[in-house]
Amino acid sequence: MLQGYELLKQDDALSERGQSPPSRRLGPRFARTVLFVTAGVLIYLGLHSTWSTGNRDLETESSLDHGVPLKECPSNLPPTAKPPAQVNLWASLAVSETVDITKWLSDPERGLNMTMSDRGSLSDNILFHIEAYRPAKADALRYLTSPSDQNLPERFARVTIHHGAASDPYIMDYLVGPLPVSSKTSMRELTEIYHRNPIPYNARGYTAKAFNELDPLIEKIMTPISDIVKELYGNDTLVAAANGPMSFDGSFRRSWVSWRRKVSGPWLHPVGLFQYVDISGPDPSTWKLLKMVYNHQVFPSVESFAEAFHNGTLKRIPHRPDQRDDTSWSTRRRSGPPRDLDHLPGPRAVSFAGLRFRVDRAKQYISWMGWGLYLGFDRDMGMSLWDIRFKDERLIYELSPQEAIAQYAGNDPMQATTAWLDRYFGMGSSVRDMLPGYDCPYEAVYLPATTYTHMGTLRRERAICVFEHDTARPITRHTGYDEDEFGAVRGYVLTVRSIATVGNYDYLFDYIFHLDGTIEVRVSASGYLQGGYWEKSQYNYGTAIRETSMGSLHDHVINFKVDLDVAGTDNSLLFTHTTQEEVEQPWFDEDWGSTVIQQKILRDYIETEDNALLKFPTNFQGGYSFVNKEKKNAWSTPRGYAIHPGYSPVHNTVVGSKRLLNNANWARYNLAVSLRKEQEPTSSSMWNLNLPGAPMVDFHKFFDGENITQKDLVAWVNVGTHHLPQAEDAPNTRTNTATSSFFLTPLNYFDSDVSMDSMNAILLKTPVTPGEPFEYIDYGVKPVQCIPDEIPPFEYRGLKAFDLEGKEAQPATIKQLRNEAELYHRIDVEF
Amino acid sequence: MLQGYELLKQDDALSERGQSPPSRRLGPRFARTVLFVTAGVLIYLGLHSTWSTGNRDLETESSLDHGVPLKECPSNLPPTAKPPAQVNLWASLAVSETVDITKWLSDPERGLNMTMSDRGSLSDNILFHIEAYRPAKADALRYLTSPSDQNLPERFARVTIHHGAASDPYIMDYLVGPLPVSSKTSMRELTEIYHRNPIPYNARGYTAKAFNELDPLIEKIMTPISDIVKELYGNDTLVAAANGPMSFDGSFRRSWVSWRRKVSGPWLHPVGLFQYVDISGPDPSTWKLLKMVYNHQVFPSVESFAEAFHNGTLKRIPHRPDQRDDTSWSTRRRSGPPRDLDHLPGPRAVSFAGLRFRVDRAKQYISWMGWGLYLGFDRDMGMSLWDIRFKDERLIYELSPQEAIAQYAGNDPMQATTAWLDRYFGMGSSVRDMLPGYDCPYEAVYLPATTYTHMGTLRRERAICVFEHDTARPITRHTGYDEDEFGAVRGYVLTVRSIATVGNYDYLFDYIFHLDGTIEVRVSASGYLQGGYWEKSQYNYGTAIRETSMGSLHDHVINFKVDLDVAGTDNSLLFTHTTQEEVEQPWFDEDWGSTVIQQKILRDYIETEDNALLKFPTNFQGGYSFVNKEKKNAWSTPRGYAIHPGYSPVHNTVVGSKRLLNNANWARYNLAVSLRKEQEPTSSSMWNLNLPGAPMVDFHKFFDGENITQKDLVAWVNVGTHHLPQAEDAPNTRTNTATSSFFLTPLNYFDSDVSMDSMNAILLKTPVTPGEPFEYIDYGVKPVQCIPDEIPPFEYRGLKAFDLEGKEAQPATIKQLRNEAELYHRIDVEF
Repeated sequence: MLQGYELLKQDDALSERGQSPPSRRLGPRFARTVLFVTAGVLIYLGLHSTWSTGNRDLETESSLDHGVPLKECPSNLPPTAKPPAQVNLWASLAVSETVDITKWLSDPERGLNMTMSDRGSLSDNILFHIEAYRPAKADALRYLTSPSDQNLPERFARVTIHHGAASDPYIMDYLVGPLPVSSKTSMRELTEIYHRNPIPYNARGYTAKAFNELDPLIEKIMTPISDIVKELYGNDTLVAAANGPMSFDGSFRRSWVSWRRKVSGPWLHPVGLFQYVDISGPDPSTWKLLKMVYNHQVFPSVESFAEAFHNGTLKRIPHRPDQRDDTSWSTRRRSGPPRDLDHLPGPRAVSFAGLRFRVDRAKQYISWMGWGLYLGFDRDMGMSLWDIRFKDERLIYELSPQEAIAQYAGNDPMQATTAWLDRYFGMGSSVRDMLPGYDCPYEAVYLPATTYTHMGTLRRERAICVFEHDTARPITRHTGYDEDEFGAVRGYVLTVRSIATVGNYDYLFDYIFHLDGTIEVRVSASGYLQGGYWEKSQYNYGTAIRETSMGSLHDHVINFKVDLDVAGTDNSLLFTHTTQEEVEQPWFDEDWGSTVIQQKILRDYIETEDNALLKFPTNFQGGYSFVNKEKKNAWSTPRGYAIHPGYSPVHNTVVGSKRLLNNANWARYNLAVSLRKEQEPTSSSMWNLNLPGAPMVDFHKFFDGENITQKDLVAWVNVGTHHLPQAEDAPNTRTNTATSSFFLTPLNYFDSDVSMDSMNAILLKTPVTPGEPFEYIDYGVKPVQCIPDEIPPFEYRGLKAFDLEGKEAQPATIKQLRNEAELYHRIDVEF
Repeated sequence: MLQGYELLKQDDALSERGQSPPSRRLGPRFARTVLFVTAGVLIYLGLHSTWSTGNRDLETESSLDHGVPLKECPSNLPPTAKPPAQVNLWASLAVSETVDITKWLSDPERGLNMTMSDRGSLSDNILFHIEAYRPAKADALRYLTSPSDQNLPERFARVTIHHGAASDPYIMDYLVGPLPVSSKTSMRELTEIYHRNPIPYNARGYTAKAFNELDPLIEKIMTPISDIVKELYGNDTLVAAANGPMSFDGSFRRSWVSWRRKVSGPWLHPVGLFQYVDISGPDPSTWKLLKMVYNHQVFPSVESFAEAFHNGTLKRIPHRPDQRDDTSWSTRRRSGPPRDLDHLPGPRAVSFAGLRFRVDRAKQYISWMGWGLYLGFDRDMGMSLWDIRFKDERLIYELSPQEAIAQYAGNDPMQATTAWLDRYFGMGSSVRDMLPGYDCPYEAVYLPATTYTHMGTLRRERAICVFEHDTARPITRHTGYDEDEFGAVRGYVLTVRSIATVGNYDYLFDYIFHLDGTIEVRVSASGYLQGGYWEKSQYNYGTAIRETSMGSLHDHVINFKVDLDVAGTDNSLLFTHTTQEEVEQPWFDEDWGSTVIQQKILRDYIETEDNALLKFPTNFQGGYSFVNKEKKNAWSTPRGYAIHPGYSPVHNTVVGSKRLLNNANWARYNLAVSLRKEQEPTSSSMWNLNLPGAPMVDFHKFFDGENITQKDLVAWVNVGTHHLPQAEDAPNTRTNTATSSFFLTPLNYFDSDVSMDSMNAILLKTPVTPGEPFEYIDYGVKPVQCIPDEIPPFEYRGLKAFDLEGKEAQPATIKQLRNEAELYHRIDVEF
């Protein structure tokens, strides 16, 4: 293919909806779509300027009602899109590409002394990760401007190697390319995107084999006290989880291990038993217990704990009243009487005239109502959006999540020391296949994603869903009686969604496109809390959700990169804010006084990066936007796009905690704006979790005083929630209030509201004869009556996996699925 | 009927959807619904604990696919509700009741010297308003607890009389009752709900006849300068609008009149010409011009203006480049090429198994998924919600909008002095019939509203719509592999909507009910800006939307009364907030230091009203809730409901402006909490607009130091937008960003998330044999395949009106409709 860019998913274009192919009857439906489209255009041309009334229509439409048998609706497969360029520059590597690169790296000629990563130990050199490295923006824009093979940027892979066999083990990123692998392919260290080098080995990523090496340590700790644990916890089987960060600056790797009941939803069943373990370095034989905490009592060793138990000085946790309880409260099992009419399915959206968005599945390109965009996908953060255009103009070069923190508090060793950065776990590799009809509407179209892991490649058929949705609210409307004042435009949106389950938590990432040029970026949370053991001393850190379980106070903040290009790449950062003034005017009189106190707008351009670490002003009396000073709309206002707060526009609460000292500095603000640089592609890295004191990417270093006037800029925008848990978080957090968003919305970008061009609209005319029905124009767009596609029976299968040789792997067992999903949240040893 | 409570709308139960009856075939569909419900219950009982896989279902369901002809879906009429009590205590007066009261008041025995209000002049006594007066809460609760005729509260009407014939004209409210009118009926002054008495005549409400009396004044002013105006404005015909407030304390009534081009969307076409008129007192012959402003030049009289024009000292406004332009930009006419596939209708929601919400149209009672509520409706603010129960417990006694302010700024006499309080205009009487399929989804059920005006009674068939909507996002979900961890609950909501068009602006009031007990109260704005004349000196007060038109800076704040009763009426106000602490723990070590900096929750009860004028804390690090200290959930936490910010949680910006000095003090905060009192039913009054210095209702006076611990409390909660207009506000503001909301959401009210009882849910089981499809339980709720109801052709008719005698009035002409809609925004005189 074109210089090695592999088009994703060429083998199963038929199962477009992530559903099983048998229920599809493609040929005739496609034909019907074409016919229907043609008919629609004719209707439009014929009727769009004709006034109607309901009465008149009644006659022409009543033929639909009786006698004539109803036709089937057009296919609910999406029509084919026409991407502006034939290559998705941000496509993931194909399995064959990663296999080729693996072979190339393992070639003794490279001198890397590699061990296959599904087998290698911590003291081996293993390939931790391979991923497509995205082209430089300048190269990409050159190609997009003139999409010829000649302009196609060379393709490179980023490769991460754990150098466990080195005398002083370390981790290094490399660039390998150009691809496909050939005699021209070479590798070099990729260091310019980091603020320290190399990557400390103690900050390393999760590898299954290395983590299993923790099991013997835990077994060694627990076996001598197994009788004591049995006496303290009765018949409960326990399972452990480790927390992070595990290091401050890479000089050690230590973690608190917290014990939980081994039941469904174990996150909600901690038992108040903790161990602090040292797992530094590549040699598990040197790993050890540092201390143990039970019921707020600290023991330097297992022996001293056992001694306290036996000599009666151990203060026991009170007998838990729910110890032998039914634990179904921490499952998703339904209970209770059904609600009135809930045995019926709720309303279901049907595009009776066929879907109105287009999809090029192979190129992962989507278009809808003037919008067009490419999708990318990576291990660290999952889905990203590229080259987003609206009405034939590029608006955003890149829109992608960067990092998700969750910083906890508590009166116990675990919660007080937990500050997750979920990029570490791979929010992309944690994306799960979605549940059709539940996670997305029945009509949604699913797109696959392929992610490399050190154990092989995962392929999920329903990683992304795309659907059009009726907001059930007109985007504009007015009741007026003068000519052409009265009417409404329907409020449709297109949603692109992906859901990542990172251990306990589920993140729903939504990109919601509106007809007026607005995008809402929204994250909603569900899944399980990381609970604590409830007792009165925890009162200031959360709330009881059961007799001895609590939800622990924590903040979530999630950062997005928004590489807006407003009418080109030269943009400035405008701070528009309001104040009040007292102003005197010659036309005011003594009745009210000669002055007026009123509001006033101030517009300031923020000129340097150092002034662009931003919080929303008090009472939201002001906001931030990207404007292109040199490109004005018809009324001489610089064209702009605003970054407008949505739900829960918060930043992180805690400042100065060592466990989040400098590795997530973006979380201190609502947003920040920096000069766009190839050396600053992301605001975080997967290793940042374990390096709060000396991170690989130190966000504050992006802000080094550079001028940001009429430059290519990036906005780093946060969403988040302060999660003060409550009983209603059990079993799972509710997305309706655990949601946060921001809008990117035109600000004098256009000359007027462009959603007024919508044909899903109505315009009414006041009748000349009082009492007559109003005449109206509906642009020929009327509800269609036909038989919709049958919904295929629900079906769900696990992911498809490929081993490191590129062969399809055996389907995973429950245990494998669980381990892969829960990573080091699950240390399951017998003792 | 029962002691005079008239059930609304008994005459047209057939046209339940506000559509025309001909397309309905009721009998058989009702029958089908019953059958279907029964079938559903059987399915539920049979299947709810059986695991299935897609494969297995495929066989049993494929019979739907071919051969067997599809059946019609069940009716989309809502099933009948079962209200907890047979009388809606908050129902509006029937036309016959207002007619009876009018007659009773006009009876010479009353000695009121009344003139019929559609004829009376300013110096007559006229009946301005009649409305049901809501019963005392204690009386209502007594009846709701035991809904017998004996407990039914007596019914009263509030009556507003303009005493124009008095030597010192004034306005007075009276209570008339009990109803129906009988020998027991009497009247008394209603003064206890106001902070001053009587109501100043200069603060009077809009009456058509009185306002028409302004026309001669305007004609008198303009006629001598008609040639000048013609020369200055070319061929443009002009139309004027007056602004408010018109008085500070009732001692005068004066207004700025601003001139606009007489075209569609005149709000966007001001021409920079203003007159200040004195219209104090009841005698129009004393009214006069106070000054005139043209292009920032002030003239004490028409003559001096004419003199400046003729002697060449008048500085002219530059020739407007768009003077002869097409003015279609200020209409809702569609233009431009259609977008890709926009000739097709978008997705449409269909309840294939029938609607799942119940409606008692006569009693205006709605129920859905454990929710139940009554609707009320009044002139001032429109729709209100009463006795809202969830899962058999009363949660809210009253949820109702109170007032909507819009305070403007500008470098001209009009915008700088405008501070609207839209209650004055009647946001209830300004509710418009909605556009089916555009303002609400096709499936929506419409309810009527009846409002009295001094010209007669208006009845709107589609004043309120109710519909169930799929949020297209599960309310909870999790991917997990342990038993019963994996599944999702669909995110359905019920929306109750009403839309008021107050002159230029359209307010969409939405009450959105969720499955978990959450309510989102949301207001979205559309319609026209109140524009200004654009010139450079306006730069700090808005943005150009056309060559010589601008959108003017303004704040909207809308206040709601939320009479929450959390587990009873005795509630306390909890302020939960977070801070950070540095805490030392024995288990921390030298590697990270012995202390931890972490977040901490503080919970403070706010004990007196004076401390309950509240703003959301910085970064939303805290929030407010009603809790019942004496009622705890199973985990010993006081049951509560939180008032949680939604979109755009703002309060008013300007403080201290004379034109909003004390008449909207609620707007200074995000929310406030006061003791519930019968003497404090509303936070505003329709006369507050014109009395900023000495309002009828001074909100701050509610806060007089009373204790609010375990008392019946009311939260006064605001939504709002800081509207910094932009080009995209033309022609109409977009609802997607011009929206603001708050949530009322359970806070340890339950023991766990109650939406987990939903049957529109799925639970999955990891297959024992790797690679097999997952088994699942869907509780028997599967998508239904049937032929949905045909959508009746679009039809729209004006409202139905009754004259003061209760006879159906002639349908209104365009001019009447326009005048009624635009009130004093339209002074249309020839000169």
